[in-house]
Amino acid sequence: MDIRTIEWKNKSIKIINQTKLPLKLEYLYIKDLKTLWRAIKELKVRGAPALGAAAAWGVYLGIKDSKAKNFADFSKDLEKVAKYLASCRPTARNLFWGIERMCSIAVRNQQEPVSLIKKLLFKEAQKIIEEDRQTSRRIGRYGAKLIKDKDTILTICNAGILATIDYGTALGVIYKAKEEGKRLKVYACETRPLLQGARLTTWELKKKGIDVTLICDSMAATLMQQGKIGKVIAGADRIAANADTANKIGTYNLAVLSHYHKIPFYIAAPHSTFNLRIKTGKDIPIEERNSKEVTGLFFKRPITGRNIKVFNPAFDITPQHLITAIITDKGIIRPPFIKNIVKILK
Amino acid sequence: MDIRTIEWKNKSIKIINQTKLPLKLEYLYIKDLKTLWRAIKELKVRGAPALGAAAAWGVYLGIKDSKAKNFADFSKDLEKVAKYLASCRPTARNLFWGIERMCSIAVRNQQEPVSLIKKLLFKEAQKIIEEDRQTSRRIGRYGAKLIKDKDTILTICNAGILATIDYGTALGVIYKAKEEGKRLKVYACETRPLLQGARLTTWELKKKGIDVTLICDSMAATLMQQGKIGKVIAGADRIAANADTANKIGTYNLAVLSHYHKIPFYIAAPHSTFNLRIKTGKDIPIEERNSKEVTGLFFKRPITGRNIKVFNPAFDITPQHLITAIITDKGIIRPPFIKNIVKILK
Repeated sequence: MDIRTIEWKNKSIKIINQTKLPLKLEYLYIKDLKTLWRAIKELKVRGAPALGAAAAWGVYLGIKDSKAKNFADFSKDLEKVAKYLASCRPTARNLFWGIERMCSIAVRNQQEPVSLIKKLLFKEAQKIIEEDRQTSRRIGRYGAKLIKDKDTILTICNAGILATIDYGTALGVIYKAKEEGKRLKVYACETRPLLQGARLTTWELKKKGIDVTLICDSMAATLMQQGKIGKVIAGADRIAANADTANKIGTYNLAVLSHYHKIPFYIAAPHSTFNLRIKTGKDIPIEERNSKEVTGLFFKRPITGRNIKVFNPAFDITPQHLITAIITDKGIIRPPFIKNIVKILK
Repeated sequence: MDIRTIEWKNKSIKIINQTKLPLKLEYLYIKDLKTLWRAIKELKVRGAPALGAAAAWGVYLGIKDSKAKNFADFSKDLEKVAKYLASCRPTARNLFWGIERMCSIAVRNQQEPVSLIKKLLFKEAQKIIEEDRQTSRRIGRYGAKLIKDKDTILTICNAGILATIDYGTALGVIYKAKEEGKRLKVYACETRPLLQGARLTTWELKKKGIDVTLICDSMAATLMQQGKIGKVIAGADRIAANADTANKIGTYNLAVLSHYHKIPFYIAAPHSTFNLRIKTGKDIPIEERNSKEVTGLFFKRPITGRNIKVFNPAFDITPQHLITAIITDKGIIRPPFIKNIVKILK
């Protein structure tokens, strides 16, 4: 399977429309910033690392036709684009990381002509894509060491090919373990409300020949009670300096269950997901999304009556003491986290 | 709101078709046993106490046209009906309780003419209905003592009017507390896969004027982390002699979360839900249901690809050490459960 979640093609950002999966593999060619903004908001492209790449291409898309003749003017255009993109989704760190990295390339080359800065920005976005491919594979290599033959792994949401460029973080660990010849069984939480586990994770794991069983989110506890889960591996949208981790709603639930059942609980994420200026999870902004995601069962006919109040946070915070280790592209980080995060990421 | 989940009308069992709620309040008039069997299987009528009543009327429906002239023949017909009804759903204790109670009426009156036995069975079913109404209200009275003004209660599935005749067990406690003038806030877990919380609990709580907020099952942990849940109250499908409790899948998850967050976790159920011959939860049979309930999002278009493996247990077992107390129609049972269950239920 040679699938790329996001790439530059025909003067546009080519993405898989993930809201159509698994029933249809549809590609979108995005030629303007507003369409990209909507695509990110509507989760046509999603997953923290993929959002880093989407943001980078988004910055390029936003400034490539800038009419600025000097850096001062160009900088104003760039800032507008950056601000607009950053307003799209508040939690995923990689989105901001991608924007910041692009902006710093411009600033570092401000003495160059605008036309060259544009070219450098194009190259930087390509570099981010290529780095993500390597990063995922490095996470896979480190993480696979934790996986035993005949292991059973529980995961939530989608931290795979579709959340990165072409390999994955949590699922990258699984792919690498499989490449090493280990026999695995994976349980995928469906991940309400938007069912990324049911729609995306089962789709890509099956394509990769991994034995996957789908469960509703509320069934994980029973599997653990029955001794059927060897470890939990989840992705991350943002990790604070103390290792508190924001990830898809339901992750904290799994962390508490793992703690109670004495099951190792791992986070897998690239270094770009860390936000060391944020000390703890308390300061990570949590996106609350439209109530219709809950009352309308994935944008279809209503399932509740009208005007039912809904609480719909897209993410939750798993406190660091519930995390066994964080699998990164620079190595596996174990407690004490505050010390070891700095040591390994430096 | 004067709603009855199940009653005898026009020579048929009149039920609310709960699969149509909340979009449509449709009544079904069931005139034969096979239709009732299917209605129970497809959850058109559901909820442990309501199933006790449905089973009782089912027995009557099954034997009312028996051509038996003596008890020996009648008994064979009755046994066939009982066996058929008992094959419908394996977990809910009340289904068997209803059947057994009807059968014992027949046995106790075996010297009477068959026509009279039929009449006595009709009366017994009516009595079960009337008793359930009182039982729910007694549970409500005992349970309401545990509720404080401005309390916030989390519940799962539907243990309300629609799970009983007209009041509820877990929700009965909430109705009674509200009648006593207490201000309450309720969070309802949507309860995947069949969404009884989203469809039924929000519907009846709203009709009763209770402040209810719907969440996905995976969001309960976050609410508890934020200190927003005062207590959890769930119903039960079967309770073993040691208080291990089978209830809707996801209940055990909430029990573990409550334990971790030091939140009281209550079960509310009538005495007919107890099965004292079963020592622990290990011996409670758990119904596993069709995988399409998970892959097809409540019987609509598929959300996963084809042939995705699914684990779909309808219930889970909450071990007794995670239960703060059981609210019954005979009083509140607290640990040590083995001793106190016998003492209070006797």
